[in-house]
Amino acid sequence: MKVFSENLVNDVVKRLKIANVSEATIGEVLLIAQTLEKETGLPFIRMDQGSPGLEANFIGREAEKKAIDRGVGSQYPAAAGIPELKNATSNFIKAFLNIDIDAACCLPTTGSVAASFGAFTICSQLDSQKDTVLFIDPGFPIQKSQLRIIGTKWVQFDIHDYRGEALKAKLEEFLKAGNISAIVYSNPNNPAWICLEENELKIIGELATKYDAIVIEDLAYFGMDYRKNLGIPFEPPYPPSVARYTHNYILMLSASKIFSYAGQRVAVACISNKLFRRQYPTLAARYQDSGVFGLTFIASIMYMITSGVTHSTQFALAEMYNQSIDGKINFVEDTREYQIRAQKMKKIFTDNGFNVVYDRDVTQQVGDGFFFTIGYPGMNSGELMKELLHYGVSCISLSTTGSEQDGIRGCTSRMREELYPILAERMIEFRKDHPIKTKI
Amino acid sequence: MKVFSENLVNDVVKRLKIANVSEATIGEVLLIAQTLEKETGLPFIRMDQGSPGLEANFIGREAEKKAIDRGVGSQYPAAAGIPELKNATSNFIKAFLNIDIDAACCLPTTGSVAASFGAFTICSQLDSQKDTVLFIDPGFPIQKSQLRIIGTKWVQFDIHDYRGEALKAKLEEFLKAGNISAIVYSNPNNPAWICLEENELKIIGELATKYDAIVIEDLAYFGMDYRKNLGIPFEPPYPPSVARYTHNYILMLSASKIFSYAGQRVAVACISNKLFRRQYPTLAARYQDSGVFGLTFIASIMYMITSGVTHSTQFALAEMYNQSIDGKINFVEDTREYQIRAQKMKKIFTDNGFNVVYDRDVTQQVGDGFFFTIGYPGMNSGELMKELLHYGVSCISLSTTGSEQDGIRGCTSRMREELYPILAERMIEFRKDHPIKTKI
Repeated sequence: MKVFSENLVNDVVKRLKIANVSEATIGEVLLIAQTLEKETGLPFIRMDQGSPGLEANFIGREAEKKAIDRGVGSQYPAAAGIPELKNATSNFIKAFLNIDIDAACCLPTTGSVAASFGAFTICSQLDSQKDTVLFIDPGFPIQKSQLRIIGTKWVQFDIHDYRGEALKAKLEEFLKAGNISAIVYSNPNNPAWICLEENELKIIGELATKYDAIVIEDLAYFGMDYRKNLGIPFEPPYPPSVARYTHNYILMLSASKIFSYAGQRVAVACISNKLFRRQYPTLAARYQDSGVFGLTFIASIMYMITSGVTHSTQFALAEMYNQSIDGKINFVEDTREYQIRAQKMKKIFTDNGFNVVYDRDVTQQVGDGFFFTIGYPGMNSGELMKELLHYGVSCISLSTTGSEQDGIRGCTSRMREELYPILAERMIEFRKDHPIKTKI
Repeated sequence: MKVFSENLVNDVVKRLKIANVSEATIGEVLLIAQTLEKETGLPFIRMDQGSPGLEANFIGREAEKKAIDRGVGSQYPAAAGIPELKNATSNFIKAFLNIDIDAACCLPTTGSVAASFGAFTICSQLDSQKDTVLFIDPGFPIQKSQLRIIGTKWVQFDIHDYRGEALKAKLEEFLKAGNISAIVYSNPNNPAWICLEENELKIIGELATKYDAIVIEDLAYFGMDYRKNLGIPFEPPYPPSVARYTHNYILMLSASKIFSYAGQRVAVACISNKLFRRQYPTLAARYQDSGVFGLTFIASIMYMITSGVTHSTQFALAEMYNQSIDGKINFVEDTREYQIRAQKMKKIFTDNGFNVVYDRDVTQQVGDGFFFTIGYPGMNSGELMKELLHYGVSCISLSTTGSEQDGIRGCTSRMREELYPILAERMIEFRKDHPIKTKI
């Protein structure tokens, strides 16, 4: 039996003026869940927004308070970021990715959202022929919303059927047109939690060089592929990255998930040494500056959007990077809780007729972590998302992420111990109410 | 005699790859000054960047640390800002401006720089006929740089010769063309420290309504017109504001100067209740949302640029607003030091042949505060700025601010007690080296 009646859900949706529930944004789903919880007193299994479910890193918090006490709050942070954070980032990338990026090329940003907004802006202004961004989907819907603001076109495809070698022909199909300025993906992937493997990143990197497109690699969930032990500084294995296969890249490293620091809005955009120093006459003409990619990005674009990143928070991130490098923070172990939650949640769903949608990487089964994807036989993405609301489970439809698969994205971050039996109970009811027709 | 020789300055300029010293940006001037100081050990009178010269507000710092201890750092701040800050802003505006703006219409932003970036973006997308921003100059060069990023045109004029009633015909000359989306100015003015008076704001407001343009009123130096006592809550006099004369406005209130909180990057954009709720089909079409100005601004634009404002800093600003309303912070008295500095600095300059460039408002002499403008007979803006560098004084040329007057902007924020005699000595030398020809 449904927990929340058809009438109640319809009424809430109507009052919230949500036009199309099946395609609801994260913000809309969150409002529906909050409203239903509030009005009925019944708990929701909140699998919608990917907000950290752990405490903000203690070392970061202490460093931030010390910086406030030292008085950094009165002075504008340097446009290029504080040297402490720039150096720490460069060292962190060496320690945990085994890649060399100069401190000068690491720019603090107000979250990776600001980094990608700036990256899309500059990439769209390099060459008037290259007016389109290519998304390797599924992906983070905000990034497409950013292109709507800027007024830049995009194309996309669902990687589901193009893993491994098949990726090459598919990518080249787009790149051949000559209009692709940037290639975007997240790894581990939001929403599917798939991880691109070295051979796939090699394909992306080599094609980016060949067609002179810039890869924007979103490492929001850096190191959180818990199948490998990625938290030991200066020791393999290292996470795969396109940075090994092209100079045309910007890596985005956020503090939001790996240090549970989402509320303070800080990330770092790391530009390859070579791209940072490349001169673009188009930029020089537009901004009346040197036209050097990294300098224009910092001084003529990012500085003009926020005039730097909260001063005390930069010191917090610098300290968290430094202590990670020193082995005093293990950000992989600190967040492994998400792996445990994903295992339990996925089991409850699959025990009740659900399937994992993105279930494999090229060489192994998909890992357990911050997000997972599930489908239910005979239901499309929007139907499943909407139907789960009646059973007190909020999530987002995969159709809003550029996926062509039927299913939803679940997030483990808000799961609590006492909710597992409730989720199990509800999914048993769900299965009863939605009998699966066995194929003949 | 010059403190820094022609050769030394030229050499530094060359090494820093600054193409045109006369038109140098604040960042470039700052670099020249820092380099000369470092290489010679001689102190510079740093009148360039407007970074606060006072300690960050203590109450704000304590509130921020408490918020960090409460654990707000892990959770994304609400897209619309935390309710505490939204309510405090609405109350602050009532207490110190005697204007009614709903809490819902007050949006925290990552500094006023982010607010104006977002405001320019949305204003440029309302009506395809209105593709140009009008600056009442002199103004803050960053705002024009923002338009370069967005790709929006602008027009401007120097208000120097159009104070009072003359403003009307001048404004209408631009507005009649029908292409003006927004009108921008700061009050008190950066760089000239002039203050638009009620009759001037009435003209601006009424014309904004008539021609359906949106006024972006930058109140970065809110209450800092020290000629009046503007720091008493709920008591006149109140600062003049266009908000009394039109519904088409966005006020930008920054914490950077009034609470010396520049490093933490926080401000609030306050949209009139009526504009906030106005529906624009163009926005609805572009963003596939409601097209309601305020909702689109928050959810489809600002949220997509930074995903909110540093969580702990929002609590700091809320507390500083609340304590100001309660009379426990007097942000006018707290910053009055700048008035004293301006008086002393202006006296040193005028004792040595300099004149105050923007010296009057309509009804009274210009006040003393954060900035002032000075000129020297027979020298244009760029020449004066460059020449002062040789005497160890860094500033920006008025020509970089949209001013047509000859002179420079000086900032009082970095002045220190021990520097007054040095400044006086150097200006005596300056006068000796640049004899003023008396007019016959």
